[in-house]
Amino acid sequence: MMATVFEKVAIIGIGLIGSSLARVLRGQGLARLLVALDANADHRRQAVELGIVDLATDAMDQAVTGADLVIIAVPMGAYASVAEAMAPHLGKGAIVTDVGSVKLAAIRDIGPLLPEGVHFIPGHPIAGTEHSGPAAGFAELFHGRWCVLTPPPGTDETAIQRVVGLWEAGGSMVEIMDAGHHDRVLAITSHLPHLIAYTIVGTATDLETSLQQEVVKFSASGFRDFTRIAASDPVMWRDIFLNNREAVLDVLQRFNEDLTALQRAIRWGEGDKLQELFSRTRGIRRSIIDANQA
Amino acid sequence: MMATVFEKVAIIGIGLIGSSLARVLRGQGLARLLVALDANADHRRQAVELGIVDLATDAMDQAVTGADLVIIAVPMGAYASVAEAMAPHLGKGAIVTDVGSVKLAAIRDIGPLLPEGVHFIPGHPIAGTEHSGPAAGFAELFHGRWCVLTPPPGTDETAIQRVVGLWEAGGSMVEIMDAGHHDRVLAITSHLPHLIAYTIVGTATDLETSLQQEVVKFSASGFRDFTRIAASDPVMWRDIFLNNREAVLDVLQRFNEDLTALQRAIRWGEGDKLQELFSRTRGIRRSIIDANQA
Repeated sequence: MMATVFEKVAIIGIGLIGSSLARVLRGQGLARLLVALDANADHRRQAVELGIVDLATDAMDQAVTGADLVIIAVPMGAYASVAEAMAPHLGKGAIVTDVGSVKLAAIRDIGPLLPEGVHFIPGHPIAGTEHSGPAAGFAELFHGRWCVLTPPPGTDETAIQRVVGLWEAGGSMVEIMDAGHHDRVLAITSHLPHLIAYTIVGTATDLETSLQQEVVKFSASGFRDFTRIAASDPVMWRDIFLNNREAVLDVLQRFNEDLTALQRAIRWGEGDKLQELFSRTRGIRRSIIDANQA
Repeated sequence: MMATVFEKVAIIGIGLIGSSLARVLRGQGLARLLVALDANADHRRQAVELGIVDLATDAMDQAVTGADLVIIAVPMGAYASVAEAMAPHLGKGAIVTDVGSVKLAAIRDIGPLLPEGVHFIPGHPIAGTEHSGPAAGFAELFHGRWCVLTPPPGTDETAIQRVVGLWEAGGSMVEIMDAGHHDRVLAITSHLPHLIAYTIVGTATDLETSLQQEVVKFSASGFRDFTRIAASDPVMWRDIFLNNREAVLDVLQRFNEDLTALQRAIRWGEGDKLQELFSRTRGIRRSIIDANQA
């Protein structure tokens, strides 16, 4: 799919993802006018100084009026209020997309508020870093990464293809998927790992101070990989867990059962059980390397 | 501490750590004769072909007779049998050290079997990768990483300093510590993270096949960091958990309590609790970056 040029693109929330997308659009000349909306004055100033948008504003009418593409890139807890604020200013035929990590909730919170004739294409780029804000973004963030789109049945095909073209211009592979299925897959590949990482780093922060300094010192032994994940944006992740509750609690239940079995194997010295699992998990790593996602 | 040259060094187990140490010794001319012992014929052949040892053998007498330094770098489950086999061939004044991840167990399994006049200096380099075998090693593995030594009270100071010199030659910072304290610190920084990573990757391998392919495809969202950890050597890790049981079960208990609290917060939609924890964990990441261990 060739990327098409948009007349006016509004990016709502110019953080890590929003600003990376701005760099893609800007770098490839895919937006004649590129406007950022952000509630944070510092982020607005940075976005303009970085030269990645033409204009940054906190006025919704200024941002979205006349836009043929609106990209929602705020934490999911703000979706409903953002959609409500933009609805009166959206023109017929405008495309609205988002980058949030839970697609059923995006459809629930945004879909019903958009006026007739506006195309909503929910999206989720499987890419990110533990850094936040407009200065943390970069155009290559999406290179070689998947982007999942979950348009409800009956969505305008031309609108879908324009969003596909945008992500492909960013270097992504695009997959179209059912929203509920997406949420189950991401619960295990993303939400559970983050929850676990936050927990284990939290457990360490509760240690007595002397022990805690040594935890930092000797973190290269496994712990530091968790701290990178657990340094991700707190508000964004709060909203993910609140919005994908059922799927997260379901995989968490499976995880707990498996952890309890391992705990028991350690307590009773069942080395064979431990070795069998530890051998099996090596295979998954090889699959990921083979799939070029390592 | 300046590194001193050893007349004959025997490395028992020429895997990732053993072969990396061989490269350090060889690269800096710290051993006049460098011998590897390994039960695996393929590893012996590789070690000689790589040119990182003078000789590779499976005969303990050939390996350790006349050695002034013996480095034990096998999985901890083999410690007692290795120590028993080498004891008759060790000369007075020889230094024996190890690289295992649990120090109380190393002292328990090796210490009593060594003859009078042999110096045992338990050690643990906080370094590694998920790869195994002699070809996976490299001389820079220990650069900028900590190495903990846990010599029991009364250990010969000159022997300790010779082992310190070896690790510093490899680029490590050396810390002398009580063995039990080491085991508690590593239970949280290393053993618990590995246990959790093995569990979550195991949970994913039990998913129905269609979902599993997507877990691989979309692993860039957090999961793949766990798969790297969960690809570590299965036998080595089995032995770590069996040998640091009490400390691991203790931190696992704390982790479980914390995870249950988060699970409850998700179920009841307590966003404030989630955000508070997620904000706190960012601080630990900053400490690790400040300590140059990121």
